[in-house]
This record gives sequence, C-alpha cells and structure tokens, in this order.
Amino acid sequence: MSPTKKDVVTLPFDFTEIDAIVNARSLAIVGASAKPVKFGSLFTASQLTYGFSGPVYLVNPGESEIMGRKVYPDLRSLPEVPDLVCSTIPAHRSMDILRDCAGLGVKGVIIMAAGFREIGEGGEALEQEALRLAREGGFRIVGPNCFGIYNPRNRLTLLPGHDFSSTPGNVAFISQSGGFSVHVGRQCKTLGIDFSAIISYGNGADLDETDLVRYFTADPQTEIIAGYLEGASDGRLFMQALKEAAVHKTVVLWKVGKSESSARAVISHTGSLAGSAAIWQGMLRQSGVIEVSGVDELCDVLLALKHLGRKPGRRLMLCGGGGGLGTYAADLAEEAGLEVPSLADDSLARLREILNTPGAAVGNPLDIGAPLIHLPVFEAAMRKAAVNPSTDILVFDVALNFAYGLGGEEGLNAAMDMLIHMGQESGKPVVVVLYSRAIGSEDIFFEEVLRRLQTRLLEGGVLVYPSMPRAIRALALVNA
Amino acid sequence: MSPTKKDVVTLPFDFTEIDAIVNARSLAIVGASAKPVKFGSLFTASQLTYGFSGPVYLVNPGESEIMGRKVYPDLRSLPEVPDLVCSTIPAHRSMDILRDCAGLGVKGVIIMAAGFREIGEGGEALEQEALRLAREGGFRIVGPNCFGIYNPRNRLTLLPGHDFSSTPGNVAFISQSGGFSVHVGRQCKTLGIDFSAIISYGNGADLDETDLVRYFTADPQTEIIAGYLEGASDGRLFMQALKEAAVHKTVVLWKVGKSESSARAVISHTGSLAGSAAIWQGMLRQSGVIEVSGVDELCDVLLALKHLGRKPGRRLMLCGGGGGLGTYAADLAEEAGLEVPSLADDSLARLREILNTPGAAVGNPLDIGAPLIHLPVFEAAMRKAAVNPSTDILVFDVALNFAYGLGGEEGLNAAMDMLIHMGQESGKPVVVVLYSRAIGSEDIFFEEVLRRLQTRLLEGGVLVYPSMPRAIRALALVNA
Repeated sequence: MSPTKKDVVTLPFDFTEIDAIVNARSLAIVGASAKPVKFGSLFTASQLTYGFSGPVYLVNPGESEIMGRKVYPDLRSLPEVPDLVCSTIPAHRSMDILRDCAGLGVKGVIIMAAGFREIGEGGEALEQEALRLAREGGFRIVGPNCFGIYNPRNRLTLLPGHDFSSTPGNVAFISQSGGFSVHVGRQCKTLGIDFSAIISYGNGADLDETDLVRYFTADPQTEIIAGYLEGASDGRLFMQALKEAAVHKTVVLWKVGKSESSARAVISHTGSLAGSAAIWQGMLRQSGVIEVSGVDELCDVLLALKHLGRKPGRRLMLCGGGGGLGTYAADLAEEAGLEVPSLADDSLARLREILNTPGAAVGNPLDIGAPLIHLPVFEAAMRKAAVNPSTDILVFDVALNFAYGLGGEEGLNAAMDMLIHMGQESGKPVVVVLYSRAIGSEDIFFEEVLRRLQTRLLEGGVLVYPSMPRAIRALALVNA
Repeated sequence: MSPTKKDVVTLPFDFTEIDAIVNARSLAIVGASAKPVKFGSLFTASQLTYGFSGPVYLVNPGESEIMGRKVYPDLRSLPEVPDLVCSTIPAHRSMDILRDCAGLGVKGVIIMAAGFREIGEGGEALEQEALRLAREGGFRIVGPNCFGIYNPRNRLTLLPGHDFSSTPGNVAFISQSGGFSVHVGRQCKTLGIDFSAIISYGNGADLDETDLVRYFTADPQTEIIAGYLEGASDGRLFMQALKEAAVHKTVVLWKVGKSESSARAVISHTGSLAGSAAIWQGMLRQSGVIEVSGVDELCDVLLALKHLGRKPGRRLMLCGGGGGLGTYAADLAEEAGLEVPSLADDSLARLREILNTPGAAVGNPLDIGAPLIHLPVFEAAMRKAAVNPSTDILVFDVALNFAYGLGGEEGLNAAMDMLIHMGQESGKPVVVVLYSRAIGSEDIFFEEVLRRLQTRLLEGGVLVYPSMPRAIRALALVNA
C-alpha cells in the first residue's frame, strides 16, 4: 500500500495555508449533534464549552437547534464562508461536504472519520477522491481518521474536547494517533507544560508530518516540536525537514512500528508504511532528534526540556533518606550514561560535620539517614549538596509515606520549599523523585498529598518525577 | 574492607536456629519507648498494634509504663527468657544488651541500629565484638543496621510497623535495605501478594543472604524467594545456595552496586562488597534466577508469578481501543522477546464480523475502535480474542478516562467482569493495563475509580499493570 498523496498532486510547503487552518477565525461543524456518544456531539460540546474564539456554525440537515444555537441544513446556507470546516460524519458521506467546501472556498477541512486508506481498497479510493476535491477547491485537509487541532490562542479544541493548558506555550505536538494526542495533552497539563498547538493528523493524506514539522519550524511561538509517528509519506523529505527543524528547535520524536507485528498494526491504523527500525533510528540520531518511547517518556522529556533545556549536564548529585535508594539510583544513572562523581573535598568535609548520625552516609550518593531529618539539619545538608562543584544537578528521592510519617504535610511542605529555594540560590537544577507506596484505606489520602506537593514543586521550578528510573531516563535523554 | 563475619567463626547453616527466630514465640523490645520519632517507640507501637502473637516484654531502665504495659529495667528482670530480643538502642550501647543475652540464653537478637562496619574502623570493631558475644552466648544476630522481621504467622512486625498481608502467603523477601523491605511489603499488599516472611538483614554480620536463602529453600511455606542484595559475604557459597534454591523454588533477585558510584554507596550503606556486575549477571543467569531492577519491577514480577507461574507462554494477544496503543504495545513486546502472532484464520474471520465499524482494525494487535464499544459487541469480540489458538495471553489496554467517558463506572465494571469471566472460561490468562490520565480537579476521583477497578480485577484473577511497558517487562521476565 503506497501513500495515496502522490497519486494526486503533492503541493509544495506553504506556511500561510497551514497557518490559516491552525489559526482559523471561524469554524463550521458538519454533523453537529446533541445525541450522546456521537463524534458530532462530543466535538460540538467541546468547541462551545471551551469557547472557540470566533463564530461556530453548526451544520446538520436533521436538526434545527442544539444547545440553544441555530443549526444550518448545509454549508451553503451559512451567513459567511468559514475558514475551517470540521467534518464529524462517516467517511462515505463526507464527499458531498467536500464538494460544498470546494465550491465555497473554505481554507481547510478536518476529516475526523476513519474508513479511508487504512481499511484497504474501498477506503483508498475515497481518500483519493477527497484529495482531488481539495486540490480542485484549493483547500487543505487535516486527517482523515484524526482528532483535529488544539490551539490555545483561538481555543480550537481536539475531539474529545479538553482545555489542555491555561496559557499558550512553546511546545507543538503532532500525532498520527488521536488517542495519544489527548493523552499527551492531559499529562502535560498536570506537569505545567503549555502548547503552541496539538495536531492529530491521522492518515496525513494531505497535510502530513513533513508539512507540519516545517510549519512549526517556521512558527515563532514554537520552540519544541514533539511528534508521535507511525510512518512518513516521504522518508527523504521528512528527514530533510527534521534536520532543518533541529537547527532551530528542539525535536522529540516517538516512532512506533519497529517490529513486524506493529508494522502490520500501523497499516491498519493509519495506512502508513512504518519502514525499517534501524534506518529510522540512524536517521533520527543523525538529525539531532531526541527519540523517546511512550506517552510517559515523551512527557518526562518535555518536562526536563522546560526546566533544564538541552544538555544541562550529566553529573548528578543523588540524595535521599535510605542507603538502598541511592545505590539503586547510582546504578541506573551510570547505566544510562550519566555520572555520579565523588563529592568535592570541601563538600565532603562540611557534610560530614552536618550529618554526624550513624544512619547517614556521606558521599555521592548521599544518604541523609531518616527520610526527612530535623529540618535545620536537612536545610544545611541540602544547601551544601546543591552547590557541590563536582555535580550539575541535585536529585532528591522522597518516599512519601516514610517522609510523611516523620514530618506530616507541614514538614514536607517546609522541606520542599527548602529544595525550591536551594535550586534558585545555587543556580543548579533540583529534581525531586516523589512517589507514594500507600496501602489500603490510606491510598487516596496520600494521592492527594502527593498531588499538592507535586504542584508546589513544579510551580517553584523543581522537576518532579514519579520514579527514579523515569527521572534518570529523562535526564539522560535531554543530555543525549 | 572485608566482611567481618569470617574473622570470628562462620557457623554452618542450621535451619532450626533461624526458624526459632523467625517463628519466635516471645519477644523483648530493648529501648521500648513512648517518645515519638524514636526507633524504640515505632517498634513498640507496631508490635502492640499489629498484635505479636506471644508475650511482648518492654525493656527500658528510664520508663515504668508504656501504653498501659509494665516496662522492665533490663532483660535479666523479665519473668521468662524471650526467644527473640529486638534492640532498638544506638550501636555503642548495644554491647551490654548482648552480654545480657549471652548470659540468659536467648535464641536470637535483632540489632536495628546503624553505626557498625558500614561507618568504617570503629564500627567494624563493634560488629566483631557483637559476633563474639553471639558465638559465646549461642544466639544468632539479624542485622545490624536493619528493620527486622515480618512474619504473618506470629505477627512479628518490621520497623516501622505495617500489617502487609491479611493471610500468610508463599513469598519470602530478604532485603539488605530496610526501606525497600517496607516498600515491597506495602506495594505487594495492594496487589494481593502474601508473604511467608520478610527479613531486612542489613549488614548481614551473622545471618546473611546465604543462610536466609537456604532457610527459605527448606521452608515448606515458601515457594518464591525474592531478594534485594548489595553484595554477598561469600560469593561462591551464595551461588551454591541460589542454584540449590532454584531447583525447588522460584528465585527473583534485585542486585545493586553494579556501577562504580553505587559500589561506593554499598560500602557506606551496609559495608558489603558489591562485586563485578558482569560476574553477578552471569552467575544469576546460570542459576536460573529472574533478575529484576527496582521495587516496581520486583513487585510486577511477583504479581505475574502469583497468577501465571513460570513460563506461561510468550505469545500475546494485544487488544485495546485505539490504534496507537496496540502499535506501541507490539513494539514493546517484540523488543522484549515476546511474540505478537497473526490471528488464526477462524478468529480473524469471526472478529471481522463482530467488529464491522470503520474505527476498528481487526488483527493482532486488535483495535476495537472506541475504548469500550457497545457492551455486547465488546463481550463477543473479547470472547473470541481470548480463545484465539495462536496466542497464550490476552492483554487489554484500558485508558481509564476515555473508557469512563463512554460507559461510566457501571459500564467499566461490566466490561471488566466480562474480562474476568473470559479468563476463567478460556483458561488463558488475561492481563489488564489500567491507567488514568486525569487532569485538574478530576484527579482524585479517577484515582478512586482506578483503585476500585484494580481490586475488582485482581480479586477476579486478572493481572493489572499501570503501564504497557511494565506489563510487557513482567511478562518477558517470567518467561525468561
């Protein structure tokens, strides 16, 4: 199965065409509905709830009013030609809509429905027809088989709708998977990572990964381009685009379809050709792209990039309450290509004076003994550790239940505020590994404490990871 | 720094000596206290709260009553000689206690305090002295620098005390780290994994990893021996013990101290010699041991062993709602040495009839389209997938928030009950990957739903993992 796009006409990259879609000023929803569990109703509700900034026109010949708004029978009846049309109706019924769009002169159409080239021959013919109509009418297509666009500036919202960030940010995320576009958006929201845009582009029949990477390379709002990719319409062109992007921006890619069975899955998901794993890996490395795997790892790297940027330094100062924790962390760090250098002589001497109890073990890793010892001792020790000249980043492991048992939430807050302050004072980044191993009925309570601490730390500029392996992996990747 | 043990007398392994400690019928707590944040008070409270099954004698010359109980000034004043003495007082004050123990004829002493060989010369001399007193008095030492013993049968409890399981189980966990002995106990409790015993043995000055592995090899309650290890007193003896253990039991080991910096940390944590990483890895593989890394991975493997046993089959049937999820899972599975075979012809044909919507993609991985489609369709599809003859284990991915949005908790419960039923009906294991990507104020609510679903599934015999990488890794390890 070859990409359908080339069988019609591959258009040269045009920033303004894509920009007119992403920053659409008016929107029509075809298939707008109030019936539950329909794409049309989910999308309608989300655009109206999260407040698309321009006019939203609802189109459905079988409805007259939805959520108190007038519904038009077709696109030709609208009072103006919308910039963007979002089609939420099934594949076989979409062609009539595209013909209307061609006649009216809209700028772009998002086709959400599946049932195109990913299902085989019949669907491939439909996709070809859609492309021909787009070329005739001079509009561009996002999708099909996608969740659309999230843009915090015009408040255009993905299906199913969520408001992922409070303010426009500098991360663009493009994704062939609709599900992952939402997962990444959700997870980043809890981490305080803001987007310039998220685009779920599905089959990428018209606007594809190459177009979107070029667009965000040129977009002044975007500093980090992240992507979930199953294949590329044109590998050579895409690689050129990535290399160009990596000169100006940080690029983070999650490429799937590396195994035989997942390559099969890629074809039936978005009809893409996955390509050889080894070739992809080599190409990504050459282009200076950070390669990740999974939603968690992608978000972990975005968090590290937000607070640390690229190549913040490989030398870790590992601290925690408990000898096993530090030993394990040191193993993970060195396996990942990071360093855990011995402490500078001065740091060693001073920390030995501060931590003079049998439970503590002074060195790197640094075991402070009890998870949160007497707060003034904790403060003095952490202050010294944060500025140790042989290390770049301080990593502190907080086993929440232990720490909570000794200091309560008040004690934890005070200790975390000290870490925030030390990060600011020393000018060196602080990373906290924060997790709960609660049991039984305590569970939800500890989850609540954990979320509050996480928010406190992130707002104070301290990175938070839920496990040591994830923290170490993220630090290794941004240093790669 | 060489292990101190050999400088005194290495005793031959004796099952009954260790058994008398683990199954102690009476207990004295030296340093019993009611003052908060003292080892003595934590340990006293936990033994009394969780109800050690025999008499508990509190010893402290400075107290007369704690929690309504008489406190004795010293061990010699007790009305009987206790089987086990737990010393919670600092290292330098422990020797007097050990002299008393030698005179009285107790069977074992747990020394919790740090400040022995792990701090260097002065501590090493103390450790030697403790061993000499133990040999003189004919008792054995657990520790020093440890959290002691958890035994669900006599309800002896680790410091800090927790009741990790409701019923005695078949997993023994030995740990040089006190912290990890508690973390693993806590996490296993939420997973329904029950212990025959947990022993935190710290420096292992007297009873060490070799003794404990031999003990649990002979222990009829124990079927799985798990361990967190920093080094071994005698590598050759330990390897013999492991090989012997692996003939009769399943052995799972987490060995740290593989890197230069972590080997340094091991010395200052428990005074062990970590040894070469490559040698260890080779030896563990030869002995048939499952090697893991981290609390999460250890518990994930214990969960898989509980429900699937060793070598349950490498051929996975991957199912979920969303094409990206399956593609990613297939990549992970094949990278880990598992298989994702094509569906049998009959399964393929029947599933195509059942899942005839554009959003679904029939194959392996199987994308059912919407996360939880119409329940009768879901049931029919999963019933067919569960018995597909080309695969051994069905893995179903539940992105909680998506699924919740479509079916609510009632719908999810019904769907999960179907998966439980299908596992029982097909005789093939079912694994659910269950996670939440909630945002903002929904967070805690989704955590609650997630915990309830997890409990429901585990009680129904379905394994639950919080992410696809963790599920795949655990399945690969038990198949290794």
